[in-house]
Amino acid sequence: MGGFISKRARVLGEVLGPSTILGESLIGEGTIVDQQVYVGYPKRSKLLSNPRGLEELDALSSGSRIGSGCVIRSQTIIYEEAEIGDKVEMGHGVMIREGSKIGSNTRIGSFTQLDGMVTIGSNVNIQSRVYLPHLTVIEDDVFIGPCTIITNDRYPVGKRLSGVRIERGAIIGAGAILIAGIRVSEGAVVAAGAIVTQDVPANKVVVGVPARVKMDREEYEEKKRRYEKGG
Amino acid sequence: MGGFISKRARVLGEVLGPSTILGESLIGEGTIVDQQVYVGYPKRSKLLSNPRGLEELDALSSGSRIGSGCVIRSQTIIYEEAEIGDKVEMGHGVMIREGSKIGSNTRIGSFTQLDGMVTIGSNVNIQSRVYLPHLTVIEDDVFIGPCTIITNDRYPVGKRLSGVRIERGAIIGAGAILIAGIRVSEGAVVAAGAIVTQDVPANKVVVGVPARVKMDREEYEEKKRRYEKGG
Amino acid sequence: MGGFISKRARVLGEVLGPSTILGESLIGEGTIVDQQVYVGYPKRSKLLSNPRGLEELDALSSGSRIGSGCVIRSQTIIYEEAEIGDKVEMGHGVMIREGSKIGSNTRIGSFTQLDGMVTIGSNVNIQSRVYLPHLTVIEDDVFIGPCTIITNDRYPVGKRLSGVRIERGAIIGAGAILIAGIRVSEGAVVAAGAIVTQDVPANKVVVGVPARVKMDREEYEEKKRRYEKGG
Repeated sequence: MGGFISKRARVLGEVLGPSTILGESLIGEGTIVDQQVYVGYPKRSKLLSNPRGLEELDALSSGSRIGSGCVIRSQTIIYEEAEIGDKVEMGHGVMIREGSKIGSNTRIGSFTQLDGMVTIGSNVNIQSRVYLPHLTVIEDDVFIGPCTIITNDRYPVGKRLSGVRIERGAIIGAGAILIAGIRVSEGAVVAAGAIVTQDVPANKVVVGVPARVKMDREEYEEKKRRYEKGG
Repeated sequence: MGGFISKRARVLGEVLGPSTILGESLIGEGTIVDQQVYVGYPKRSKLLSNPRGLEELDALSSGSRIGSGCVIRSQTIIYEEAEIGDKVEMGHGVMIREGSKIGSNTRIGSFTQLDGMVTIGSNVNIQSRVYLPHLTVIEDDVFIGPCTIITNDRYPVGKRLSGVRIERGAIIGAGAILIAGIRVSEGAVVAAGAIVTQDVPANKVVVGVPARVKMDREEYEEKKRRYEKGG
Repeated sequence: MGGFISKRARVLGEVLGPSTILGESLIGEGTIVDQQVYVGYPKRSKLLSNPRGLEELDALSSGSRIGSGCVIRSQTIIYEEAEIGDKVEMGHGVMIREGSKIGSNTRIGSFTQLDGMVTIGSNVNIQSRVYLPHLTVIEDDVFIGPCTIITNDRYPVGKRLSGVRIERGAIIGAGAILIAGIRVSEGAVVAAGAIVTQDVPANKVVVGVPARVKMDREEYEEKKRRYEKGG
């Protein structure tokens, strides 16, 4: 990538090497944009309108807004019309589609994919390689382990897409699969590898295939305390 | 990537930014090649023959054939000797190994990997992050949900590799695992997260770990109709 | 990526196209570094110290050591302070974090991620898209199938991280999930898709969710022999 920064873009942070920033993108103060990053990538309909080269693509892009104090590592692709808060840190190769919104102080692990309009709150910690499709909503203070898969189509290939909602303070273990339309309620825990086909009640821990309630969050925290003491 | 287009390549479409196209590659009319794309990547034996720089790699590459009206998004890597039909659309970071064949009107989601000689029909819809190893065959009109894993080695590390075959019109849910050598017959449905260890009969829906028949395709379609009406 | 090779780096092998090599990196004789590779990527604390451009990043990087006769394919990112032996071959888009060590004659598949200090022996074969977190240890002669997920946090979000250890000659099937702290003993086999929550005894084969012992390695090898004869 030779590097291309739109004349319409406003870059208050630091771009560390050749990257592409299209349209009226705003990169906030103190934000680090690594090399090989693409900000303001045009959505499908615009890409298909037959642009010839980066200048024409740039003219088509509405750009994206990235807050201040963020870190955007190499190979990350952020589509146009995304809104990212302050102090958001991303790993490498993150992909964020148009219309997605991310709050502040949130971390997005390497190769995680927001594959449509995805809404993520503040103080969220999403590990590497998580797949979040169109309409997923993740509230504040949620943790999502690596390689978690979320879906939005209950009977593929369907016309009715239903986003998964993960409420405040919930914890999702590595490699879990959350089926379209379910809600993981406040403070709930989904064990690693669980397949969640129904709503998870608040402060309950679910385990297995399909996922069933195994204990309360309180008991989980007690086990955790013992484990951390070396038990 | 500074961008390198082989003198032997025939590019009838549009290359939007710095990309690498090696060997006698053919890029059809109206095809969009994004930036940071690699077409005609040399297979292993050639890479190991000690080429010095892109010119020598280029001389070694047999190139690939990409049809007309395709979209090849950034970070995609297509090895030499791949054949891709018309109106094929790919997401970002797709990887396609040598000898793979893709029909027309097929969509390949971001970060999906054809890791060997893989044959894919027409009107196929493969979502993001799907892993398809050597010898996999996917017939026309198939849908594969995100993060599906297909294998080809029943008793690893084995000498006898057996490709999975997914027949016409089958649907594979997100995160399913299909074990080496099985056949998913025409019109069958594999639920999200299922681990399929045996052949799936035509027009049956399988669910669970290991996957068992749960209903007919007809019943599945009826449930889907009710769900789409809001039921 | 315009390409940037540190004046402090010692490159005895061949760099095939524009790549970035920072700090006192050593690239051994006969090693092939593809284009769009990043070697010596600075760890988090350094990246956050406000470097302005690649020269300043370069000054911060301690570099990495890569042996002789290796192949490092495009889009691979190797952080500083990694140590890689001789004749190690990587696919595309591999990510290796700071402090990781890899023995000799080991293969790392495309998009596999060593996400922290990970120790890998010699003659190891790791397929594509495997996720290996901080503290994972993999001994010599191990095979890991594609898309396997390893974890290190038994009760997320926890303070006590426990690495998984996979002992010599073990085999892990595709898409398995290994829970934090477990040990897969010498010669054991984990079936595809298994979720391993407890230690696996030596030379046992475990299957299912959660994984249970199903047979001895000897029986597994016998079944394999029959299968390879066409049974």
